[in-house]
Order: sequence, then structure tokens, then C-alpha cells
Amino acid sequence: MEKRYDIAIIGSGPAGLSAALNAKIRNKSFIIFGNKNLSSKLQKAPKVNNYLGFYGVTGEELKEKFIDHIKSMDINIQEERVNNIYAMGEYFTLMVNEKMYEAKAVILATGVEYTKALEGEEEFLGKGVGYCATCDAPLYKDKVVSIISYNKEGEKDASYVSELAKSVYYIPMYRDVYNINDKVNIIEDKPIKIKGNQKVEKLVLKDNELETDGVFLLKDSISPKQLVPGLKILDGHVEVDRNMQTSIKGCFAAGDCVGKPYQYIKAAGEGNIASLSAVAYLDSLK
Amino acid sequence: MEKRYDIAIIGSGPAGLSAALNAKIRNKSFIIFGNKNLSSKLQKAPKVNNYLGFYGVTGEELKEKFIDHIKSMDINIQEERVNNIYAMGEYFTLMVNEKMYEAKAVILATGVEYTKALEGEEEFLGKGVGYCATCDAPLYKDKVVSIISYNKEGEKDASYVSELAKSVYYIPMYRDVYNINDKVNIIEDKPIKIKGNQKVEKLVLKDNELETDGVFLLKDSISPKQLVPGLKILDGHVEVDRNMQTSIKGCFAAGDCVGKPYQYIKAAGEGNIASLSAVAYLDSLK
Ligand SMILES: Cc1cc2nc3c(=O)[nH]c(=O)nc-3n(C[C@H](O)[C@H](O)[C@H](O)COP(=O)(O)OP(=O)(O)OC[C@H]3O[C@@H](n4cnc5c(N)ncnc54)[C@H](O)[C@@H]3O)c2cc1C
Ligand SMILES: Cc1cc2nc3c(=O)[nH]c(=O)nc-3n(C[C@H](O)[C@H](O)[C@H](O)COP(=O)(O)OP(=O)(O)OC[C@H]3O[C@@H](n4cnc5c(N)ncnc54)[C@H](O)[C@@H]3O)c2cc1C
Repeated sequence: MEKRYDIAIIGSGPAGLSAALNAKIRNKSFIIFGNKNLSSKLQKAPKVNNYLGFYGVTGEELKEKFIDHIKSMDINIQEERVNNIYAMGEYFTLMVNEKMYEAKAVILATGVEYTKALEGEEEFLGKGVGYCATCDAPLYKDKVVSIISYNKEGEKDASYVSELAKSVYYIPMYRDVYNINDKVNIIEDKPIKIKGNQKVEKLVLKDNELETDGVFLLKDSISPKQLVPGLKILDGHVEVDRNMQTSIKGCFAAGDCVGKPYQYIKAAGEGNIASLSAVAYLDSLK
Repeated sequence: MEKRYDIAIIGSGPAGLSAALNAKIRNKSFIIFGNKNLSSKLQKAPKVNNYLGFYGVTGEELKEKFIDHIKSMDINIQEERVNNIYAMGEYFTLMVNEKMYEAKAVILATGVEYTKALEGEEEFLGKGVGYCATCDAPLYKDKVVSIISYNKEGEKDASYVSELAKSVYYIPMYRDVYNINDKVNIIEDKPIKIKGNQKVEKLVLKDNELETDGVFLLKDSISPKQLVPGLKILDGHVEVDRNMQTSIKGCFAAGDCVGKPYQYIKAAGEGNIASLSAVAYLDSLK
């Protein structure tokens, strides 16, 4: 168990980073979870013209500016994926695979998932389909598991699961050099649908069909509803008031996850508000 | 009468500029009112660390970045002060001294006024105290007018009023070289209070006392309530929903004028939202 932080920020896109800057300036202890590329949505933008102060930059260039900024302020991103957040009353418990973290306040800045659900994904959710392979790994002892991963972090999860499962298929949805356990079967193919009767039996790919007991989809964002049980959702987004307070006391949210428009500076502005609201909340606890 | 714009943006701080960028990208005809220094609150900031993408910049440096950005996009600021905005149903009429403008949608990005009200200011409002010298000038024909101005633009107003009034005192609340009509009496002193019986009779300064029929305070921001008659105000700020829509259809607002925290990137993020909401509103009119 690590120390109890004042604030835990989930997500390293513009919303999360902007929240982190302000937490730092306000002298709060905090941890920010995400990845060193900050956000795939930053990397992918061909040309950004509407982030006031930068004209005609690529997403990659904007990303570099953001990295310079947080480095100058000694802010480090914890490269881990938060699987679940539980409101414990006075504080929150964050589950990161086998690890646990605690924080008095939480800021959700997880973005939104653009990828459409796979055929069968929703139907078999909880019946063989899941979003956290490491969490559910014990259920798949001596069974066959397929992991569809949208990011490189999935490789670690696949290696971990392969220690317990009978066999693991890993279907990467990105191109890279894979750093993965030998026991894992890497399959470069396009997932089409999930089939079964009462529970998952098959994963159909474009050029292949895999017999499997479980299918895990490791997406860039987990839906906030799954991330924080009990959180109020409105039209698919985290419900917040103008202070970025969610329906759970001490839990704030910012950026794409709270609603449209999906824009960098809107996300950064909301991260700023959420952070100052979290600071005010912490001060009110004293 | 000029053409009817799609959008009129009032204010050239980060909120107004961000709104302008997005109106431009969305190909709407628009006009943005403000001043070439953008905002005194940008100029005055000694060090800004919490605008994501820029670390350790002065307000002046940030201002230059913003100017570069809008110049690259051919956005020009209309250096005029909007005195009143009237909702006409399908459009808005904006009063700028003797001129009038029309727009289908309005975005208020006027910031907030930090200066405390002068003793007597509220008491004599409408009884000799006003905020728009040029508007009320005809009432002061052959009378004595005192103008307390927080910005250089007040010089033009004072010169104009001096053509009608018997005499004009100009009390600048800034330091600069004054470019003003000879008939105007410049008095460098600190206003203390406004005195009178039924109506204004005297302006008391630290080292002086002026007999006067009217006192005009030319502040950086007019209160939104005065600017837009009928606008709903909540705790001193323009009431908006999460789309930055005010209580008046077609009228949006962003930045400090809609509430705390008073911060650059919050203002810019809200300007982005307000602009896209205005675009959606315009599209709905078709
Ligand atoms: C191709 C493209 C072009 C775009 N162009 C523009 C543009 O020109 N202008 C503009 O304003 N907007 C643009 N956008 C939109 C913009 O990218 C988003 O609005 C913005 O990135 C949202 O920021 P965010 O911080 O809310 O979320 P994101 O940027 O999505 O960041 C969320 C981060 O949190 C991480 N995360 C999520 N869940 C967890 C978890 N449980 N544990 C740990 N980390 C987690 C994610 O991996 C991600 O890194 C574009 C988007 C795309 C895809
Ligand atoms: C000394 C100082 C330091 C600060 N430091 C920081 C900091 O480090 N970080 C941070 O995030 N924030 C900081 N702030 C706060 C920040 O300046 C404001 O939150 C921000 O400027 C608000 O932007 P805005 O666009 O809403 O309004 P403003 O920046 O106030 O801009 C409004 C503009 O509209 C114009 N205007 C108003 N009414 C009219 C009208 N009727 N017609 C035409 N034009 C009009 C005004 O003249 C002004 O130019 C600081 C403020 C000050 C004073």
C-alpha cells in the first residue's frame, strides 16, 4: 500500500495534465495515471488550429509542448491503467491490477472511446467478455483467453495472464515490436465478432476463428460507469455540475468524458476547474 | 448600418479570442469587439504557469502568442466598446456610441471588473452616475461632466463629450501620454466618493473636490446586466448552462463573466464551447 494521496488523476490527455498543473501549483500531493505518449488523440491529430496560443501545429507538436510543460514542473506520469475506483466514504481506493492506491479526491479525465463495440461484445459482457484481463485472470485458470488490445500496455497483461491460463491469443490493434511472453500466441488479424451460446465460445477474425473461453478488449478508455461503480451517467457521459463535481462526493471529472464538444482546450479548461474544485473540497475536509 | 453578422463576440480576452478562432474555422461571419492589447488581465500577469503548453511565461508573452495566433488566421479586433445589446427576437442590436451593429448570435466574453464601487456610485446610478459618457452626452449639454477612466479609450469619449458639455474633467486611472481635446481638464488624482442630494453634485478626490453634474466611470468591463438588459444573473455572474447558453436565446457567454475560477485556460475552453454552441444555434435557424 502506498501513501494516501490528496488527489488521484486518471488520464494523461489535456484534461488530466491541466488538472495536474493546478494540483502542483496548489501544493497538493497527487498521482496522475496515464501513458508517456499522453493521449493517442493528441498524437493522431494532423493539424490543430483551435488551441489558443498555438497555430497550425500537429498533434505531435502539441504533445511535445505539453510534455515540456509538465517536465518543467516535475510532474511524472504513472504509467499504469486504473481498472476500478471505489468510493470508500472519506477516500477512494484505486485498483491497478494487483496494486492498490488511495486518494482523498479523484479526477476522472479518461477521454472517450471512439471504437465501436464488436458484434457480440455487449451481449456477452460478463459472460466471457471483459475489459480487465489481469483482474479476471484467476477465472481463466487452465482455460483459453483471447486479448484484443488497442495499446502496447496490453502486452504486459497478456504475459501475466499466460502464467495462469492454458493458452493466450493476443490480437494487437496497433503496429509495433511486441515485447511479450513466449507462451502468448500473437495473431495479427481483424476481430469481426464474438460468438457463443450462454457464454463466449468463439472469436471470429477476418481470416481465422479462435476457440476461446474469454475475450478481453483492452481499449484506451474504460467506460466511466465500469471504472467507478455507482457513478451517475447522462447520455453516455459522466454527469457533472459547473464545478466539475460528479454525483459522488470528492469525485470530479473533466474533458471528453464529461461530454461534447470533444476539444483540447475545452478539456484543458475543465481540468483546471476540476482541480481547483478538488482543492476546495480537500480544504473543506480539514 | 453594417451587415448583419452571424456572431458578435464582445471581449478580446482568452474567452473571446478562443470563440473567434472557432467561429473562423466554422466559416461564420463574425465581429469581435475589444482592444489591441487584448486584455489588461493578460498584460498584468507577472508569471503564468497553468496555461497548458506554456510554462513560466509572462502575461505579456502569452498575449503575444495569442496575437500571433489570431493574426495567422486573419482575425481582426474591432477596437470599439459595446455599450448595450438588445435582443430583438431573431437577432441582436449592438450599440457602440453613435453606431449600431447587428448579429444573429452573441457571445459575451467581457471578463469581470475587479475595481470596487466608489462610495456613492451605486446610490447615484442613473441620477448623474453612468457608465457610458457618449451615450448620455446629450443630457449634459452646457453642464459639467467628470469622467473617471480606467483605460485609454476614455480619452476619445472625453473629447467627444467636451463638444457638448460646458466643461469636462478627465480623471485617468492609468498612466500614459494623453491624446485628448484641449477643452478637457485632465486631473491626476484619486477619486474618493460621489456626493449629492437627489442627484450628483460633487466628486470628491483625494486632493480636490469637483462641482459636477455627472460622473461617468469608464471601466474595463460593463456589468453584463447593464450590457444586456433582461439577462439572468446568478451571484453576480451571467447564468449559463453547460453549453454556455445564457437565459436569452442566441446569447452565449464564456470566461470570467460566467463565474469562477478566474483563469485563462478555463476562459479559453469556455470560449470554444460557446462558439460551437453558437454555430449549432445558427444552423438550427436555417
Ligand atoms: C484524429 C483527431 C483529431 C483531433 N483534432 C482536434 C483538433 O484539431 N482540435 C481539438 O480541439 N480537438 C481535436 N480532437 C479532439 C481531442 O483529441 C480530444 O477532445 C481531447 O484529446 C480530449 O482530451 P481528454 O484529456 O479529455 O482525453 P484524451 O485526450 O482522450 O486522454 C485520455 C487519456 O487517459 C488515458 N486513460 C483512460 N482511461 C484510463 C485509465 N483507466 N487508467 C489510466 N489512463 C487512462 C487514455 O489512455 C488517454 O491517454 C481530435 C481528436 C482526434 C481523434
Ligand atoms: C494580475 C493578474 C494575474 C493573473 N494571473 C493568472 C494566472 O497566472 N493564471 C490564470 O489562469 N489566470 C490568471 N489571471 C486571471 C485571468 O487574467 C482571467 O481569468 C482571464 O483574463 C479571463 O479571461 P476573459 O476572456 O474571461 O476576460 P478578460 O481577460 O478580462 O477579457 C475581457 C476583455 O473584454 C473587454 N471588454 C469588456 N467589456 C467590453 C465591451 N462592452 N465592449 C468591448 N470590449 C469589452 C475588456 O476590455 C477585456 O479586454 C490573472 C489575473 C490578473 C489580474
